[in-house]
Amino acid sequence: MISVEEALERIRQHARPRATHTIKSTDALGSVLAADITSDVDSPPHDKALMDGYAVVASDIAPSVELSILEEVTAGDVPTKTVTSGTATRIMTGAPIPKGANAVVMIERTEIVGDQHAKVRISADGAEPGLNIMPRGQSVRIGDVVLQRGRLIRPIEVGVLAECGATEISAYRLPSVAILSTGNELVSPNVRPSAGQIRNSNGPMLEALVQRNGNAVVNLGVGRDERTDLDWLVQRGLEEDVLILSGGVSAGVLDLVPEVLASNGVEQVFHKVYLKPGKPVWFGVKKDSQGDKLVFGLPGNPVSSLVCFELFVRPALASLSGRKFSVVERRTAHLATRHSRYSDRPTYFPACLFEHEDKLQVEPLAWKGSADLRTLADANCLALFPPSETEFAAGDEIEVYPL
Amino acid sequence: MISVEEALERIRQHARPRATHTIKSTDALGSVLAADITSDVDSPPHDKALMDGYAVVASDIAPSVELSILEEVTAGDVPTKTVTSGTATRIMTGAPIPKGANAVVMIERTEIVGDQHAKVRISADGAEPGLNIMPRGQSVRIGDVVLQRGRLIRPIEVGVLAECGATEISAYRLPSVAILSTGNELVSPNVRPSAGQIRNSNGPMLEALVQRNGNAVVNLGVGRDERTDLDWLVQRGLEEDVLILSGGVSAGVLDLVPEVLASNGVEQVFHKVYLKPGKPVWFGVKKDSQGDKLVFGLPGNPVSSLVCFELFVRPALASLSGRKFSVVERRTAHLATRHSRYSDRPTYFPACLFEHEDKLQVEPLAWKGSADLRTLADANCLALFPPSETEFAAGDEIEVYPL
Repeated sequence: MISVEEALERIRQHARPRATHTIKSTDALGSVLAADITSDVDSPPHDKALMDGYAVVASDIAPSVELSILEEVTAGDVPTKTVTSGTATRIMTGAPIPKGANAVVMIERTEIVGDQHAKVRISADGAEPGLNIMPRGQSVRIGDVVLQRGRLIRPIEVGVLAECGATEISAYRLPSVAILSTGNELVSPNVRPSAGQIRNSNGPMLEALVQRNGNAVVNLGVGRDERTDLDWLVQRGLEEDVLILSGGVSAGVLDLVPEVLASNGVEQVFHKVYLKPGKPVWFGVKKDSQGDKLVFGLPGNPVSSLVCFELFVRPALASLSGRKFSVVERRTAHLATRHSRYSDRPTYFPACLFEHEDKLQVEPLAWKGSADLRTLADANCLALFPPSETEFAAGDEIEVYPL
Repeated sequence: MISVEEALERIRQHARPRATHTIKSTDALGSVLAADITSDVDSPPHDKALMDGYAVVASDIAPSVELSILEEVTAGDVPTKTVTSGTATRIMTGAPIPKGANAVVMIERTEIVGDQHAKVRISADGAEPGLNIMPRGQSVRIGDVVLQRGRLIRPIEVGVLAECGATEISAYRLPSVAILSTGNELVSPNVRPSAGQIRNSNGPMLEALVQRNGNAVVNLGVGRDERTDLDWLVQRGLEEDVLILSGGVSAGVLDLVPEVLASNGVEQVFHKVYLKPGKPVWFGVKKDSQGDKLVFGLPGNPVSSLVCFELFVRPALASLSGRKFSVVERRTAHLATRHSRYSDRPTYFPACLFEHEDKLQVEPLAWKGSADLRTLADANCLALFPPSETEFAAGDEIEVYPL
């Protein structure tokens, strides 16, 4: 049996970024840039007013000076007149500064005076050249690399791409995911289970996890422990970049999954990891010229499934998308209460993380094992208890993984 | 001018949860439950094997005892035979425990022996009653409230709903959002701007922010500073729960937006907030029997828009969805370098937050003002500099808002 760290290292080696493709930048949220983005414009495109007010010659400005108004320029207009000493142009935020002007006096410091409102009186002691003006190209110059290859596209980047005219971009393809729940005991959530049956909760939960992660998902429903059925479903699942199975990887006689995978060209990379819950987790790869297909066999118990998704599947999906192979965030917290626990494996235990007196504290919940999804729903983290030890005292430092 | 806190309080008063509706639980990700969910099943539905192994009478177990094998039960089967002293049933993880048995000995501690493989030899010193068995109903009992009204539905809750047969649920309706960028200077991202023009980066950025937040979004594109056009677009926008405008709320002569809103029945709640960037932010409400429509007028500069979205719009969307009116997370960090800054308003400044020697440190970026979106894209937080002060020393504690 291998450690969590070793399992992650083996997954990392196979989770290479998918091919790149060209997409609309408005569809690119959550994707990673596969090429640098350069700007085709200066930003701002002209010396630009940062305030509503009057564009003036800075050296004119003195208490109560009166200037003749030349014209009015709003954003979207182009000034037609040159500002010279003794004149001013009314200007709105964002509008281009007229020739000759080198400062903007804010509207609150001005008053219209004279016949036909032809003059403006300024109530300012003076103005530095450049006041309330953003010079052309100060944020971005034509040809500048504004976003580098490898950058994750969040809403701010969508804005930057729009500003620079990058309406189509080259990005790493987001991996698609198929989900297949296996087991004769499973019925759909809308069915009332008969004796010996339970509802398939893993399928919908894994679908939601993948969807929330931003990946396209195909839910193949429930596969029975029967070779022909499983074989067909596994073939369909292998059309996607990643196939996640749940159930069918422990030692039961009907656990056909590894066999069916092998007959479909999926090679086992590891089976069983030294952790709890989740020990029977299985990982394999099918060679493919378009990028290897990754197959995760998660244990059938929903809590084991969730823990294995967070620990193993999520970083793989990130890496396939061109992001860092990033392992779950890990923090250190103090146990809020004593806790007794024995296991030969490191245990990821549903718990509540909270701040108390400026310290991070963690309280393990009354969890009843890997089939107890309801208690996990009340948790906001997993507390990692190291193997072998039995007694943990209040105040002990342990590692936690926020959910 | 009001403070950020006062602005938030006024928004909160108008951001009441929308009506409830019945939706499929697989479509409910990101929604909030409007009614308690009770289970229609026990979980587990039967005393259940937690390991592959043999179901036995606990008191039989002694080193090298041999037991006759009655039958084999896998998950999904129903046992047909009663286990009595001297007998055992081969059992798989998840399968129902046969009558008479009160412990499961794990497969690794057993060996098949005898003619026709009819017996199993146990290598264990003994077994406590209940060993490797999860009793019926231990996680959930029929009629238990498993998820309470007000609970946000994450992937784990989707799993719990499936387990309990709650395929349709009552949830608060997620507010829909319309986005309208205004300004004569704006052209679409696919157009090369002429003199005086800039591309509309706010529209795509706000659309991405809303989409990422999980809300349906209608992007109305660009409205010119022209009454008839604006009027039509504002009417369309008011069909959604929330209308976000960007631009058109400063003091410029063509800033028609507040007028057009008023003529469409939108009452101003506030205009201008004591912060930088974002001072001209506008908020109003249109009374509606289906739930008041909220209208946010964000400043046209993209950085101001983003700051106002995070500070004001995001908590409103949460509250309309039945979640807490939760203000952006706030942390305290130490300035990594000295910083000079004077403003009469509290300033939210793009910055980088990082850990160094176990301390949270924050480094303000070389930001060129509210039109400089590119620098904001390199930030991972906003650093809040209080008004009036000019010099901040390295090591000073300031508040930061992670992005």
